[in-house]
Amino acid sequence: MRPRDFSLGVCWYPEQWPESDWRRDTERMFDMGITVVRLGEFAWSRLQPARGQWDGDWLRRALDILHESGLRAILGTPGAAPPRWLLDQFPDMLRVDAGGAASAFGSRRFACLAHPGYARACVCVARRMAREFGGHPAVCAWQIDNEYGCHDTAQSWSARAAVLFRRWLCTRYRDIDALNRAWGNAFWSMQYADFAQIEPPRPTPGGSNPAHVLDFHRFWSARTATFNRRQANAVRRHSPGRDVLHDFMGFSTGFDHFALAADLDLAAWNSYPLGFLARHGGGGDNAREKYLRIGDPDHAAFHHDLYRACGRGRFCITEQQPGPVNWAAYNPLPLPGAVRFWTWEAFAHGAEMLSYFRWRQMPRAQEQMHAGLLRPDDRPAPGAAEVAQVARELAALPESAFAPAAPAEVALVFDYQSCWMRDALPHGDAPALATCLAFYAALRRAGVDVDITPPHADFTARRLVVAPLLLAPPEDFAARLQSAGCTALFGARCGSATAEFALADDLPPGNLREALGLTVLRVESLPPTVEAPVAWRGAENRGAAIHWREVIDAHDAQTLATFADGGGAVLVRGGAFYLACRGNAALLDAVVARALRHAGVEAAPPPADVRVRRRGDVAWLFNYGDAPATPHLAGDMILGEAGAIPPGGVLALRRNG
Amino acid sequence: MRPRDFSLGVCWYPEQWPESDWRRDTERMFDMGITVVRLGEFAWSRLQPARGQWDGDWLRRALDILHESGLRAILGTPGAAPPRWLLDQFPDMLRVDAGGAASAFGSRRFACLAHPGYARACVCVARRMAREFGGHPAVCAWQIDNEYGCHDTAQSWSARAAVLFRRWLCTRYRDIDALNRAWGNAFWSMQYADFAQIEPPRPTPGGSNPAHVLDFHRFWSARTATFNRRQANAVRRHSPGRDVLHDFMGFSTGFDHFALAADLDLAAWNSYPLGFLARHGGGGDNAREKYLRIGDPDHAAFHHDLYRACGRGRFCITEQQPGPVNWAAYNPLPLPGAVRFWTWEAFAHGAEMLSYFRWRQMPRAQEQMHAGLLRPDDRPAPGAAEVAQVARELAALPESAFAPAAPAEVALVFDYQSCWMRDALPHGDAPALATCLAFYAALRRAGVDVDITPPHADFTARRLVVAPLLLAPPEDFAARLQSAGCTALFGARCGSATAEFALADDLPPGNLREALGLTVLRVESLPPTVEAPVAWRGAENRGAAIHWREVIDAHDAQTLATFADGGGAVLVRGGAFYLACRGNAALLDAVVARALRHAGVEAAPPPADVRVRRRGDVAWLFNYGDAPATPHLAGDMILGEAGAIPPGGVLALRRNG
Amino acid sequence: MRPRDFSLGVCWYPEQWPESDWRRDTERMFDMGITVVRLGEFAWSRLQPARGQWDGDWLRRALDILHESGLRAILGTPGAAPPRWLLDQFPDMLRVDAGGAASAFGSRRFACLAHPGYARACVCVARRMAREFGGHPAVCAWQIDNEYGCHDTAQSWSARAAVLFRRWLCTRYRDIDALNRAWGNAFWSMQYADFAQIEPPRPTPGGSNPAHVLDFHRFWSARTATFNRRQANAVRRHSPGRDVLHDFMGFSTGFDHFALAADLDLAAWNSYPLGFLARHGGGGDNAREKYLRIGDPDHAAFHHDLYRACGRGRFCITEQQPGPVNWAAYNPLPLPGAVRFWTWEAFAHGAEMLSYFRWRQMPRAQEQMHAGLLRPDDRPAPGAAEVAQVARELAALPESAFAPAAPAEVALVFDYQSCWMRDALPHGDAPALATCLAFYAALRRAGVDVDITPPHADFTARRLVVAPLLLAPPEDFAARLQSAGCTALFGARCGSATAEFALADDLPPGNLREALGLTVLRVESLPPTVEAPVAWRGAENRGAAIHWREVIDAHDAQTLATFADGGGAVLVRGGAFYLACRGNAALLDAVVARALRHAGVEAAPPPADVRVRRRGDVAWLFNYGDAPATPHLAGDMILGEAGAIPPGGVLALRRNG
Repeated sequence: MRPRDFSLGVCWYPEQWPESDWRRDTERMFDMGITVVRLGEFAWSRLQPARGQWDGDWLRRALDILHESGLRAILGTPGAAPPRWLLDQFPDMLRVDAGGAASAFGSRRFACLAHPGYARACVCVARRMAREFGGHPAVCAWQIDNEYGCHDTAQSWSARAAVLFRRWLCTRYRDIDALNRAWGNAFWSMQYADFAQIEPPRPTPGGSNPAHVLDFHRFWSARTATFNRRQANAVRRHSPGRDVLHDFMGFSTGFDHFALAADLDLAAWNSYPLGFLARHGGGGDNAREKYLRIGDPDHAAFHHDLYRACGRGRFCITEQQPGPVNWAAYNPLPLPGAVRFWTWEAFAHGAEMLSYFRWRQMPRAQEQMHAGLLRPDDRPAPGAAEVAQVARELAALPESAFAPAAPAEVALVFDYQSCWMRDALPHGDAPALATCLAFYAALRRAGVDVDITPPHADFTARRLVVAPLLLAPPEDFAARLQSAGCTALFGARCGSATAEFALADDLPPGNLREALGLTVLRVESLPPTVEAPVAWRGAENRGAAIHWREVIDAHDAQTLATFADGGGAVLVRGGAFYLACRGNAALLDAVVARALRHAGVEAAPPPADVRVRRRGDVAWLFNYGDAPATPHLAGDMILGEAGAIPPGGVLALRRNG
Repeated sequence: MRPRDFSLGVCWYPEQWPESDWRRDTERMFDMGITVVRLGEFAWSRLQPARGQWDGDWLRRALDILHESGLRAILGTPGAAPPRWLLDQFPDMLRVDAGGAASAFGSRRFACLAHPGYARACVCVARRMAREFGGHPAVCAWQIDNEYGCHDTAQSWSARAAVLFRRWLCTRYRDIDALNRAWGNAFWSMQYADFAQIEPPRPTPGGSNPAHVLDFHRFWSARTATFNRRQANAVRRHSPGRDVLHDFMGFSTGFDHFALAADLDLAAWNSYPLGFLARHGGGGDNAREKYLRIGDPDHAAFHHDLYRACGRGRFCITEQQPGPVNWAAYNPLPLPGAVRFWTWEAFAHGAEMLSYFRWRQMPRAQEQMHAGLLRPDDRPAPGAAEVAQVARELAALPESAFAPAAPAEVALVFDYQSCWMRDALPHGDAPALATCLAFYAALRRAGVDVDITPPHADFTARRLVVAPLLLAPPEDFAARLQSAGCTALFGARCGSATAEFALADDLPPGNLREALGLTVLRVESLPPTVEAPVAWRGAENRGAAIHWREVIDAHDAQTLATFADGGGAVLVRGGAFYLACRGNAALLDAVVARALRHAGVEAAPPPADVRVRRRGDVAWLFNYGDAPATPHLAGDMILGEAGAIPPGGVLALRRNG
Repeated sequence: MRPRDFSLGVCWYPEQWPESDWRRDTERMFDMGITVVRLGEFAWSRLQPARGQWDGDWLRRALDILHESGLRAILGTPGAAPPRWLLDQFPDMLRVDAGGAASAFGSRRFACLAHPGYARACVCVARRMAREFGGHPAVCAWQIDNEYGCHDTAQSWSARAAVLFRRWLCTRYRDIDALNRAWGNAFWSMQYADFAQIEPPRPTPGGSNPAHVLDFHRFWSARTATFNRRQANAVRRHSPGRDVLHDFMGFSTGFDHFALAADLDLAAWNSYPLGFLARHGGGGDNAREKYLRIGDPDHAAFHHDLYRACGRGRFCITEQQPGPVNWAAYNPLPLPGAVRFWTWEAFAHGAEMLSYFRWRQMPRAQEQMHAGLLRPDDRPAPGAAEVAQVARELAALPESAFAPAAPAEVALVFDYQSCWMRDALPHGDAPALATCLAFYAALRRAGVDVDITPPHADFTARRLVVAPLLLAPPEDFAARLQSAGCTALFGARCGSATAEFALADDLPPGNLREALGLTVLRVESLPPTVEAPVAWRGAENRGAAIHWREVIDAHDAQTLATFADGGGAVLVRGGAFYLACRGNAALLDAVVARALRHAGVEAAPPPADVRVRRRGDVAWLFNYGDAPATPHLAGDMILGEAGAIPPGGVLALRRNG
């Protein structure tokens, strides 16, 4: 996948179509400008039609045809959709939900990753595929499994999971009294005498201990990484020199993607802007209607920046919405040009490759209403023309456009564990991802580039580090920031918890107290309809708190903005800013502007609904609005047209001079 | 039931009252003008108090008293509420829901119709009743069971159902590869090697295959018909010459009522206008408040026309709301006169008989808040006086008023399978019944009579055939329309699916393409809050799309109205109209007007909230509004008063000249 | 607890903190003015660390320290949170919900009170505690268990519960035919042949028989009382002379608190005004926002008056919110002064003692976000200063302020059984507690004191008795009212049911008919959005019906106000008023004013949002509003400041002259 960035790809399922059509398919792909094909990730039942049988010939022929058509292949291991005979072999391999209900065959992701027989079978089929096809000249990369945790399956409460969870706890705490102390089990007489007494946290009248819930999350996150690593190792052994990736699903935080991606060569993610807006869109119906056909201005970019971090600089899009999807409550048509628009935004953010899901709409089964680049009648869908246009534009792009982006001056810290902690102890707080997206969007409205990082990143190159939600920061977090000399902006609840999921000793912000020079005396959460206005020193009101508000003792910090009762809302000590509430957009814009100024990062707010991303000396502008927008930057146009950027339009400018 | 149409009936439960009161009850019924009494359908435990026991004497005495009072009886078979001892005999006879939870004794409809022991017991008790009472002079008809599928029980996921489902699949597909191909099981490795591996579709992370879900619906529809047929046969053998019916519950589409009714002599349905409005009312709170005490103007009429079709011309009302019901979220009093109003509307639509549920309010158990014609203290409830008024009015009605209605010029095709398909693959579409009701209401606002038909009907006598939602039309559907020479109006999604529940080959409208001269290139669904305006050629905007919108290639069709982006919204080829979206009321009114004009059917829109139905040369007008309405037709008044029709008023006019 | 009223207390969990800190804790308590400490109720696992082990030394040391610090102790029996080893011993002791799902260990209230092994263990540990500590000089009272029924656990559907339920039914009905008749099981063939066939009412298609549901409620209410009585007896035997109480949770109506409290010396309840408002608040978001930081003006007072009745004049607050709680959907900070405000309101209503929950915020486990008087870092939280202020104010209070309140002229009848009946047969009616609270609030807006009573109370001393919701009045209810010579005000549905949960013979109001001189001919329920205006004789419209409306035959009653259709809305016969609907606030104010006038009770409506309570010759005024309020009464100020009462302010005035 590395010969040249900005490759176009597509997901292809030869097992679903007559072999006689394959060559025509691949030649049309090539003609459309596609160079990479993902395949195989749902073909387990065709490779192993029955227990002990193997039929790989068809896939070899498909790879041969791809190769002959000048295409490269990403081969998927098929664990996400095991065949029926495996369930006959392991009737207890089904995923079990928190209420104790087992999943059913006849879909995907219905197996429990903690089941040793199922997990072993997944490694076996992956190894066999790697042995058979690992040296095939078409194969350039491997995808392990498909969308871990999708359909809310990141955890399973099966008996097998319970056994492994106990083992994991035993390893972590060694003796049961250590666990009792860590979890605070003196509360409500919850002490255990033996690890064997511990179950996964199930629904129970007064709610489970958050520490219990968190450890179950951690266990499953580690288990998922292990599950993935075994296949990655098997594949690498037999198919050396190929990249190994996994395709993470957007808006999925059920396990630590940074940790799992440590075993990958690059991260991939699946991008469905309209489905995400319908399902996860903030801003109420208004935003859902306004961006109905183009998606939220920050959803895709956030994930690009996140998975670039997961892949330690390398990422791609394995599945890109090419038309309407089938899985949201409603499924609108993309704006004409949106497929091209999304593609260019992915490249601007550093995607090596972008693959559309899928080549041809499958007129049967669960996804029969999911668009492909081809209609089910084999004719091109509108997305196809947009892909071809991208291919032509790519060919015309000057070499300099491919120059990599410099590390961004601004880093946003994203912490999976804090997502789990927030869900285990919501206390009226906004959802974790919404909080992080709100900060990210404010930075983007300020016109700056953002790198997302895990909490344990090196911040040396940064000027501003933003941590929207980092409940239990690594012990050296503040020190790393300080030694890097960068400005920092923390959101509410940062530092409020210990690693054991207790309240921070000596109150929040715990191990950030010295850096921030303040203590959080108490917190409150508010009804969703209530806004608490915030006033800035020597200025008019600017924004409001929503959902969450804290009472601060600013013993060593300066108060920049206050709530109506005089309590500090925005505080700073040296270069460390703290926002003592969740903020609405106006408040986030104000605090981000202040932090950027302090960090010496030049803000250049684009027009409303326009977003910008720089790469080398090229600035890419994307108009998410429904009206033409006059660009706020000047330069030599290398993509797009002079004048205003139309709705759904892209502009690429090379800095002149 | 046939001596004369327009009979009045009532539901009577002698087993719940002292025998000493029976004769007084029946004599009061007779005095009120009632001639038919339904009884027995919940009396299993009184007929068979224990396993192997039979006590039919009390029922014989009740029938004797009915006969002596000049009343005729509809006897019900009691399968809907089996006695406790049968559950002792068959502990696994309970219905099981999709999540695996079994129902409990202590209510009704808790048994699984797929349980052979329970089903056999139902036939046995029906046969015994028929043998004992089938020749009784009072008995004029049999009702088999009660409200199949009520309380959302049309399907059961029991182990017994699984066995029969597999057998049904085996019969349908014969070999498992045919099933795999039909369902598209190459997708997600879902192939089966053996029918024995197939389970009923249960909740599973990525959702079940719609073809799997549809076949389970078909299986259950067929199973319910079989269950019914066995009892119908047993009853007919021992009680020849009596009508056999089943009382379908309104707003119930869980099985194919046309198919089940093929084994009946006439169809019956249970009409609860205020309960239906509260539970199923469209038009939001506004409509629910406006029609609070009279019901939706089209709910009852739609069902009358539907069950007239199910009964091949013959239908009746087995249960008519006589006052407030007990089962909706709120239960208002009917408008004074509403009981009479509903009765006349049923007769105007062709009901042979209308029976009120129930005679006396039962002051105990689940339905103690459900009104009867008598209050629990044995005094008449307000409904009783309205029934007596209807009886007097009936007696005064000229013979000509009983003349049957001619077949309507307009037929509306209702397809149960499309309801199941829509639910298996909603994709943001409106509920199926809501879509059909919306077309039906537009036709009624245009003042025309409507016959509802199944998809396989003969259209020879029709001028306009409207198919609001027919996803997989019979192969000869278009040909039948064409040979009948009638105008046709199709709603969106018509022809979009194959019988195997795949997308139509060569795209929708599938086997309607030639007739319609268009291709549906792609579809989208919209948030419930979004309206997409529709503009008519050479006219102002008229209506809007909601929920669903299609992109049309009108290769051989003419575009009559367009969306804002220029795409066709209403198209026509010859006499075949196509509405490429769900429409709001204004759009449906416009397209219906156009289609009627083309068909040569004279529209005569009544005043707002007035509905009209013709029968012989008599036009019946019903004012559902809350203000007096001036009739739009003239003629000799045979019911009602001169001048405006009051709210809740009825007017019957005989065409003069 | 009796030496002097108005004691301050706190809940303390020494088992959760190092023993080295205990003395410092108790000395600080004493310094703060606290005199009573509740402890032990969640310490089972520390007292019995394993089966057969006992470790009471730590608790004795804690009691010694309390004693030495001048504090008295309320010792709790620990059944609400049994230890893990007990579950090993009795794996079937888990509570089971209506759907059949068992609770899980790792919380509280997860055990089924019907399990004999668990119940026995609860008695054993209580007896052992009483033997060990019952004579300790610090111990002044015992609390049995904690918040029965909390987290919606008042019932359990376990197999053990089924056995006891059958036994209870057998005792109640003796022969099965009596049960069949009482329940009306002739309906739907629901007769049982044997008590052994009866199960607890589970979800079933057509819904369970309300009589079945009611008897299960009654069974559980009795079972809970028995469970409590056994411990109370054990404790009394070994710790004579100490008060025995239980701490009821607010807004909990799952069992009869009057009946259970018959075995107690005094009643206690747990008061969380902000949590209750968030979870149970009426009046929509508007009221939830308006009273966000102070609570609903009538929630706490209603419970004070209710538990004063349960305790036959004696009650206390075992848990008072001292800051934000952790368990509502959002958890705001109390208004500064609110903790003091709530404390004084409790004392004004007669609380002997008020104990804050909890001493120090526990930074681990489920309640780590629940405030205490101390922050988790051991510093005082804002509540602490308010407690100290109350203590100072208490010390300065004149002796006369401690004089007990006279019985109120107005009694409000609260009936737990009617709550269960309403829930078993809602029919669109408002929730039972909301109905009672609405009447209570109207009385408080009229400025009168209210005593709450059970239905079987003696009304001799009353002038007005208000029964908002009394579906099945005791047979002598009307006679008791009459012989007491008091005015009565009944809400809709009063008298509508028999004790067997059938509709009242000869229609509602059943055994109240003669007293009220009217018959309820029929009832209706309305959509939540509909208001039906009510007009008073010779006056303008005043208020409206909501939710529920009845049609009245006022054969021996006078109609005071009517609905738009002329039907009676407010009726009176002699001194018995009847409100034939649920009323909005304006209608309730009007009808309450009328009834008070008739009763000769002087209404003195305080300013909006101010509430008043008299005790001896002292009137206490509480301003729940967000603006200062001018007091409507005059007198010598014994607490508070001259001038307007600030928001959250308290004023105590002694009648002068």
